[in-house]
Amino acid sequence: MKKFFLIIFLFLSTSNSFPQNNDSAVIESIYSNALNSYDSYNNLRYLCKNIGGRICGSKQAALSVDWVKSILENYGFDNVRLMELMVRSWSRGEKEIAKLYFKDGSTENLTVCAIGMSTGTGENGLKRKIIEVNDLGELKNLDKEQIKGKIIFYNKIAKNKFFNTFDMYGDAVGPRVLGAIEASQYGAIAVIIRSVTLSNDDYPHTGIMRYVDTLKKIPAFSISTNGADKLSRILSAEPDCEIFLRSTCKELPENISHNVIGEIKGRLNPENIIVVSGHLDSWDTGEGAHDDGAGIMHGIDVLRIFKSLNIVPNNTIRFVAFMDEEVAQRGGRKYAETVEKTGEKHIIAIESDVGGSTPMGFSIYGNDTVIAKINSFKNIFHNYGINYFVKGYSGVDISFLHKLGIPGIGLIVDSQRYFDYHHSPNDTFEKVNRRELQLGSAAIASLVYLIDKYGLDLP
Amino acid sequence: MKKFFLIIFLFLSTSNSFPQNNDSAVIESIYSNALNSYDSYNNLRYLCKNIGGRICGSKQAALSVDWVKSILENYGFDNVRLMELMVRSWSRGEKEIAKLYFKDGSTENLTVCAIGMSTGTGENGLKRKIIEVNDLGELKNLDKEQIKGKIIFYNKIAKNKFFNTFDMYGDAVGPRVLGAIEASQYGAIAVIIRSVTLSNDDYPHTGIMRYVDTLKKIPAFSISTNGADKLSRILSAEPDCEIFLRSTCKELPENISHNVIGEIKGRLNPENIIVVSGHLDSWDTGEGAHDDGAGIMHGIDVLRIFKSLNIVPNNTIRFVAFMDEEVAQRGGRKYAETVEKTGEKHIIAIESDVGGSTPMGFSIYGNDTVIAKINSFKNIFHNYGINYFVKGYSGVDISFLHKLGIPGIGLIVDSQRYFDYHHSPNDTFEKVNRRELQLGSAAIASLVYLIDKYGLDLP
Repeated sequence: MKKFFLIIFLFLSTSNSFPQNNDSAVIESIYSNALNSYDSYNNLRYLCKNIGGRICGSKQAALSVDWVKSILENYGFDNVRLMELMVRSWSRGEKEIAKLYFKDGSTENLTVCAIGMSTGTGENGLKRKIIEVNDLGELKNLDKEQIKGKIIFYNKIAKNKFFNTFDMYGDAVGPRVLGAIEASQYGAIAVIIRSVTLSNDDYPHTGIMRYVDTLKKIPAFSISTNGADKLSRILSAEPDCEIFLRSTCKELPENISHNVIGEIKGRLNPENIIVVSGHLDSWDTGEGAHDDGAGIMHGIDVLRIFKSLNIVPNNTIRFVAFMDEEVAQRGGRKYAETVEKTGEKHIIAIESDVGGSTPMGFSIYGNDTVIAKINSFKNIFHNYGINYFVKGYSGVDISFLHKLGIPGIGLIVDSQRYFDYHHSPNDTFEKVNRRELQLGSAAIASLVYLIDKYGLDLP
Repeated sequence: MKKFFLIIFLFLSTSNSFPQNNDSAVIESIYSNALNSYDSYNNLRYLCKNIGGRICGSKQAALSVDWVKSILENYGFDNVRLMELMVRSWSRGEKEIAKLYFKDGSTENLTVCAIGMSTGTGENGLKRKIIEVNDLGELKNLDKEQIKGKIIFYNKIAKNKFFNTFDMYGDAVGPRVLGAIEASQYGAIAVIIRSVTLSNDDYPHTGIMRYVDTLKKIPAFSISTNGADKLSRILSAEPDCEIFLRSTCKELPENISHNVIGEIKGRLNPENIIVVSGHLDSWDTGEGAHDDGAGIMHGIDVLRIFKSLNIVPNNTIRFVAFMDEEVAQRGGRKYAETVEKTGEKHIIAIESDVGGSTPMGFSIYGNDTVIAKINSFKNIFHNYGINYFVKGYSGVDISFLHKLGIPGIGLIVDSQRYFDYHHSPNDTFEKVNRRELQLGSAAIASLVYLIDKYGLDLP
């Protein structure tokens, strides 16, 4: 009888199946540690206020690379290093101008900004009539002769009805990305795009746009939602007014930049890697606080939490600060190429790139076994507001690892406020709440702890 | 065979068991309607900016009563009326003063505010030495002779570790409520209380405090967290410095005030009532945006949504704007007394009094049948971020209905930011996000729709 109990005891104490009571205690300590450390919040303040917006190829991006490396070194993480890569480079140039000219000789300024990677108007700017359309579809249905030599104003109003604002974004972002191509093929000479946000404010939102080499590259501008409403009202009253647009933005030669990497080396299987990540570059008009300073802080804080709590992982936990998510994803591509070449074994890659608001779940890209395993952790997260364990997209930078068979997870956070800030001058440090940021670190650290302990094989 | 299908069809079309596919469509339309209406956000702006802080008995509180009544009338709701009651009345008086006097003759000002219902220091103020304690327990352990004639500084630091910030509040609020009583019994002449918030900032947070008639009523002040940290550092360096405190706040004679009520009359059982509610009064130093302007807007918007979507309820949906949650809960008490006298049948009462952030669940006070029934609605809410259906506290104002056997539900929202604003000058309109506010209305309207349709009896 004693032997029977001994066997039971040994079974219980060595069992590797989830959940164990001890896990709840560890995860409680992870949350407590995250909520009591001001490091991530203070680091985010530094990145936002002392470095600021940091589009790839810029001086600020280079500064941010050096700064993140020094942060990782100061924590004493293992194997801190840079991974060199080439990035496209683009300069916004002088403050953009948009000025309406009316029949009666009066004028009115509108606040605009160039959309990312747009060509400029040239020093002299351009002045033409405007055609307002709702979206790409409405443009296609216009009399094409009418479009020639005009400026197309895409006034696609983002829809309030979506619960998840990323659905709103997907629905509304088309003109920003493809609007210049579509307008150029019909002979338009510039485009103005309503900002993709549900907030009624005066911030123009930038973001990436595309050209094709077979068509003339025409300048693209973003206008705030309030500005777009005003422009639309003006065009209703005076359809023939002209607008003067000027931007001196331009693409520069490609430039050297870097991913930044640091690790906590695994005890049992140091060759097996779990990646936590965010992207270090941001658009230039704001501070890149939610997009994606928060993700960078989450990743660094996961390693800090492990070290602070003396949790020595079985596998290596690697933080990657990806360069160039916003423009051409060179950092993510380079990282995946390197993994392919070296044959490094990755268990999974996790990315935080949806802002620093309250975490709510994980979006899992992987096979059914991976999804089932991550779902088996669900109960332990319920008390921490994490209730969404969904099959879905992981993250832009880590998506390049999927073709190597490496699964990925994207943090899901409360999306309601995200697009109030996204790609705009409004994406500043003050818009990130300390506790909400800390909870993101805790959520990812807890997930990493469980994956590291239990692996991703069933059961 | 045809008859069989007919019976099945009739069964399906008249079945009253949950869930039905149609419910998902209705709830989707409720969310879409809420997210597309700017009424609640614009109304909140008016309440905050044109009326402002509105402690019961004040001119602002009276203005807010008239304004809410006019809003309900303008919507054309049924049976709009005031319910008269008496409230305590308190005047803050002149801007409070706190000034440190050092041995070397220098001085330093600190930002403080009187705690709600505190007595004043008198015109001349008072100037004494300070004893810093952590909390009520530490005070009890002090040499009582030492306390006499001194000012007690309760510097209880709110704990970061709690996931739900209401747990932090419960843990830390003791000195604010009871600190003056405890200090007075040992002969202290005033108290200064560290603000109950996890935010490091310069806002003193007020709130209610208690006295007992058997002890001298001594003045109580709140100091911001930054101010408390500074005061603590100063006391470490110079324990014998003195502080001058001055407040001219005082209690005034009781005053007439009102709950404000409006309804959508039920079609089948108009005598059965479902209450949606918030409280109209707020502390005076901020705008009462999250506490509880948001709850008032939620309640009004539930009725607006029903009317806008032409959903005619089976039972009467009644909105109650309770007066005086913050001081003596006279509005909630009066309402319950009236229900008891008239014998009005209430199915349930719902209150929103935890701010205007993203809704996450419902806290249910009721018997097992009620809790099981509300839980049966759970699945339909999952896609809207509502995942907590917990047995627990409902709301201060509706709690008086429980002794009449009426169950209650409190909205649960993301609590992370709430105490950054709570009872402070920082509780302003700008701190409420439009979509987060709208989602609260949608969540409650959806719950009311389901309760109205299916009742609270099992199955």
